[in-house]
This record gives sequence, structure tokens and C-alpha cells, in this order.
Amino acid sequence: MRKIYDIILFHEEAKGEAFLTRLEGKKPLFICVIGTTETAKIPRISAAGKYPELTDYTPPADVELLLLGKCKCIREVPVTPEGIPTPALITMSALRLTDTPALVVSGGLKINPHVPFLDLGGGPGRDIRTGKAVDHVKEVMERARIAGENLAKTTGYLVIGESIPGGTTTALGILLAMGIDARGKVSSSMPSNPHELKIKTVEAGLKASGVEFGALADDPVKAVSCVGDPMVPAFAGLVLGAASKVPVLMAGGTQMGAVLAVIKALNQDVLTNVAIGTTRWIIADKTADLKGIITQIADVPILAADLDFSQSRFDGLKAYDSGIVKEGVGAGGSAIAAMVKSKGLISKTTLLKEIERNYEQLLALR
Amino acid sequence: MRKIYDIILFHEEAKGEAFLTRLEGKKPLFICVIGTTETAKIPRISAAGKYPELTDYTPPADVELLLLGKCKCIREVPVTPEGIPTPALITMSALRLTDTPALVVSGGLKINPHVPFLDLGGGPGRDIRTGKAVDHVKEVMERARIAGENLAKTTGYLVIGESIPGGTTTALGILLAMGIDARGKVSSSMPSNPHELKIKTVEAGLKASGVEFGALADDPVKAVSCVGDPMVPAFAGLVLGAASKVPVLMAGGTQMGAVLAVIKALNQDVLTNVAIGTTRWIIADKTADLKGIITQIADVPILAADLDFSQSRFDGLKAYDSGIVKEGVGAGGSAIAAMVKSKGLISKTTLLKEIERNYEQLLALR
Repeated sequence: MRKIYDIILFHEEAKGEAFLTRLEGKKPLFICVIGTTETAKIPRISAAGKYPELTDYTPPADVELLLLGKCKCIREVPVTPEGIPTPALITMSALRLTDTPALVVSGGLKINPHVPFLDLGGGPGRDIRTGKAVDHVKEVMERARIAGENLAKTTGYLVIGESIPGGTTTALGILLAMGIDARGKVSSSMPSNPHELKIKTVEAGLKASGVEFGALADDPVKAVSCVGDPMVPAFAGLVLGAASKVPVLMAGGTQMGAVLAVIKALNQDVLTNVAIGTTRWIIADKTADLKGIITQIADVPILAADLDFSQSRFDGLKAYDSGIVKEGVGAGGSAIAAMVKSKGLISKTTLLKEIERNYEQLLALR
Repeated sequence: MRKIYDIILFHEEAKGEAFLTRLEGKKPLFICVIGTTETAKIPRISAAGKYPELTDYTPPADVELLLLGKCKCIREVPVTPEGIPTPALITMSALRLTDTPALVVSGGLKINPHVPFLDLGGGPGRDIRTGKAVDHVKEVMERARIAGENLAKTTGYLVIGESIPGGTTTALGILLAMGIDARGKVSSSMPSNPHELKIKTVEAGLKASGVEFGALADDPVKAVSCVGDPMVPAFAGLVLGAASKVPVLMAGGTQMGAVLAVIKALNQDVLTNVAIGTTRWIIADKTADLKGIITQIADVPILAADLDFSQSRFDGLKAYDSGIVKEGVGAGGSAIAAMVKSKGLISKTTLLKEIERNYEQLLALR
């Protein structure tokens, strides 16, 4: 596949190239949208935390790492049950190398971060098996739209990432409710993707809310309310508010499908100014199919940072190349933005060096 | 006094002119820092609300007006007991004329606004007569500093305003605790400035906290904690984080003295990149002495928007020229920024026309 710098033009190549051209010479603002859902505590559904109860702390700890260079709400950086560190390490390194500003937006949290965050009035999400996953979806999305509109006036473009444990399951919920067949297609932070468990969980939520596959194709607010999570309306609102003014790189994996579906149902005009930015690990994931989700929704380009940690001197980073974690906290998108901003001077090699340097410092803090 | 456009160079003329030159051709970001304090509910201390209990709603309603063009947490725009409308009307008009983005920062609130706001972990302030006015001052200031640092990277310069009823009394508290003699010098939103009541209130707070005049000159965190309000540490932190990178126009009246004293005690280097921007009504106020406060602290310039509502066709606006309200919500600073951004095309006349147009629309909504 063709690359520009170390960015793979994975899907809609010409549009992807044109999108990257529009970013040249512009300064980005990075936004991390965080949220929590009780869905993450279903055993074996999420690896975004050492154990299920700790997933409440992962999003706030991730953004603390981005803004402070260390975590405050927990003692060490978020890790998977195997001890593999959060992708926020990648994002933090990319932002630091390019002196890129970062802002945190909360869609709804159980634990607040010890850093400034934009409050949209949302609360943490319930287990989607209740069929009543998220409250105040419309209001949160509207407030996010206003924030996006204002922030778009301050920056050349936006890179928006997310952190919400359990997020691929809730994304699957939204996608199925809206008629996008994402069964077996959403990604996982674990190498063995628990598709059966995710589908069973979503089906329980759809049943509880009396919603059939595709019944909410035109009602994204209800889809999120029933079987979604609080990150999605905040993320979608930001894009809806910003993308009519500036390019927006939606930085994430298969969860971006759910966000994209919500955006498309509300204002498809903004999609011409949007691209998905992810990691090579997501597009190489044989247990998932990002392209298979996105092509059902809209013809937006998919770009992937050609990250490669296989030669890292740290086992915790090497693990990324055996399919653990893969993406999150806007890792891929922030790497792409760093490559564009530096006109390729920041390559996958320089980025890995900076990530290793930061990881080493964090390990020394323990 | 010399003017540039309709901006009066009121104090430190040469520095004020140099500051304005540094803003030319740059895009501003407007930030409104809001907070509430029980101090505002002391009878006759604040006119920033129809009656004392309503002062909790004034800051959130002010920022709703800025971002939405209408209020949500109350039905009409905030008014004084006499029905004179909030200065947020001026700010809203200045921001709209120049398409300037706005962001809300909360230092600590009793009632949250129905718009996005940056949460810094602070709570609403207590009555300063308790001597325990504000909790978590250091942490809020540190989080604000981080926000200021990041926001400075997105913009040419910052204009920061505030809305906190009772704020001149709490400012007097901080100033006296830090050894700046502001007795009889702080301004008021009422034409008859209740200096005696303010001094009595502050003295009760100083006594309750065992603090004498000037005892906390080097401990601004304690000064705010004992007899201040939650707006001040948020505002000061933003300036501390931003002003080493970009110019910051501190948009307000005599309360800016308290913010300035806090900043100076923590990092006086940033003061070279700071100016105070206010309204003509503040510098013309015979019941107060902004210059007399500021000169005791630092030699920062004072700029004043030469606003004149005496010929307005609305009595509610005309009242500003008889000394009611005078300033707030960054009215003066946002007017100055609009004049600079338009290279003077936006004058006091065009601004009044826009304010009248917006006021008329809001009256029609009732």
C-alpha cells in the first residue's frame, strides 16, 4: 500500500492523500474524549485495565498522562492484565515531539481526572444489557457541538481520540441498532477477540430495549441511549460542530464506525472534511474489519500510522506487535499528525525512540 | 487621554500601546472564568442578580448567553434588582461581530451552566466571614495553569473575563490579606458603592481566619483560601500558564487587582505580557480607584474601551452611563479585542448598535 511519510493510505487512497495535503502547514489541536461504561466490567470484555473494576480509572489516568506526563488517580500508567502499557504513551510522545496542545472532553465519567476537562453534563454509562445505556445523549451531543464549533476557530485542524474501556462492545451496539452489520468486525485490545461475548452482550441490550437490527438507522440519539456509551455522543458532537470549518482526523479504531454512523445520520455534509486515522495494528488485525464497517457507512478515507514496535527493547511495547492493545487515546491519529507537522522528519523510528524514552522514565518512577 | 481606535490608554500609556501593537493581526480566544460565593448573598453586597439567591444563577446564565445567544438556567438574561441587563450582552456582541471563539472555565459553581465548561475540580465558595472561603485553591490553580499552557498554543492571544457576584468584596479580602490597601478602592455594580459593608465583611473574614493586613503577602494560596473566591485561582492559573507564551488581556475591573497580586506573588516574569482591559465606566468611577490598586502591585498597563451608552434608545443600556453595572464578563476587554481585530472598524458606535440589536432580540424572546 502507498505511504506518505510513515502514513499508510489504507482506504480511499486519493481522498486520504487530499486530506493529508489539507493538513500541511497547519497546527493541530488534540482532543481526547473520555467516558466510562459499566459494560467494561463484564468479565473478559475489556483489557483496558489490570482488572475490571480498574477500568473506571483508565480514561482519567490516560489523560493525566497526556497532560502531566504521569498519572495521578492511579499510581502507575494504565496497563492490560498482562502489564502492557496504555497507548496514551504513544499519544503523549507524539504530542510532546510536536508541542501540540491537548484538551480533554468528558462524555461521562465515574472517576474524574486530576486535570482540566470539558464537562458536557453527561454521566457514566450503564451496562448496555439494561437497554438504558446512556442518559442525556441529545444534550451532551449539542453541548459538544458548541464546543467543537468554538474550538474549530482556534486551530488549523482537530485530531480527536478517545479512551473508554469496553468501547468496542458499545460501538457494536450502536452499529447493530443503526443497521450496520459489524458482527465479528469490531476490534479488541486483546489478541483473542471475544466476538461471541460482545455479540451476546449487545443482543441482550437490544432485546432489553426492544430494538431490532437497523431499527434505529435514523435515530442515532436513541441508539446511543439504548446500547451505546457516553464517549460517542461527545465525540460525534465535536465533529459535527468542527468539521464544517476545519478538517477533523477521527483518531481511533473500529469504534470510529459508531461515531461516523451517528454523524452521518445527523449531518452528512461534514463527512467530506473527515478522515479516520488509526494504527497499522488495527488495519492488520485479522480478528476485525475496520474497512468492512466504514464502507457500510460512508466513503471517508482511512489512514494508518505505520507503527512498528517489533524491535523495541521493551517487552511491554513489543507486545503491541503481537496484537495486544493496538490503538486507543488517539495513538494512531496523533502519530499521523506528528508526521505531517514535521513533514516526515518524525518517522516511525524517531517516534518509537521517544516512546521508549518516555516509557523508561515512567518505569523509573515506579 | 490618548486613544487608539476607541481604546483609552489610561495607565502606563507606552506599555499599553506596545501591548496593543503585539495583538495586531493575531486571533484572540475569549475565556470566561466563572464561580460563585455565598458572600454574594449578604444583603446589599451584590447587584449581580435580581435578588441575592439568584446570584448563583448569574455566572452560568452569563456564559449561556455568550455561547448560545440566550440563557437556559434562567428564563431571561441576568439583571440587577433594577432590571439592568448583564454586561455579558456587551461581550456577546463583541465576540459575534468578530467571530471570536469562547471557552468557559469554572473555578467552582453552585449551579452548572447548560453549556460546555472546563472543570478544574473546584467547588463554590463559602461566605468569607467564615475565614474558610475556598477549598483546593492550589490544585485548582495548578489545573488552570495546565489549561492556560495548552490553550496558549492554540491562539494568538487570550482575553480572559470573569463572572462572580460578590467578586469585588472577595477581591478586597485577598488584597487586604496580601497587604494592598484597597479599602474604598474596589468598584461596585451599584451606583452607590457599599464600601463600609464590604470592609466590615472582609474584616470579619480576616478575623475568623486570624489573618492581619498584609500577613499573606507571600502566600496567595492561603489568602484566597481564607477570604477569596473560586474565580481568582482559576483566573490566575490561566494567566500563569499562558502569559509566558502569548499576550493576555485581563478583562475586568478592580477584581483584576486581586488576580494580579496572586500572579505576581507566584511568577512575576509573566507580568510583562499582561495588560488590564476594562471599560470607561470603571476608570470614570469616582467611588473606586482601579489605578490606585494596580500601582501598588505592578506596572502593567490599563486599557479601557471607550463605551458610551448615554444616547442608547434603551433605558436598560442607558443606565450603564449612570454608573450601574459598569463591567463584568470581560465586557471591556472583549470590546477592546474587537476594536483591535477590526483595526478600528468596530467602534464604540458600531458596537452599541450590535448590542442594541441583540438586546432587542432578547427582549422580544420574553
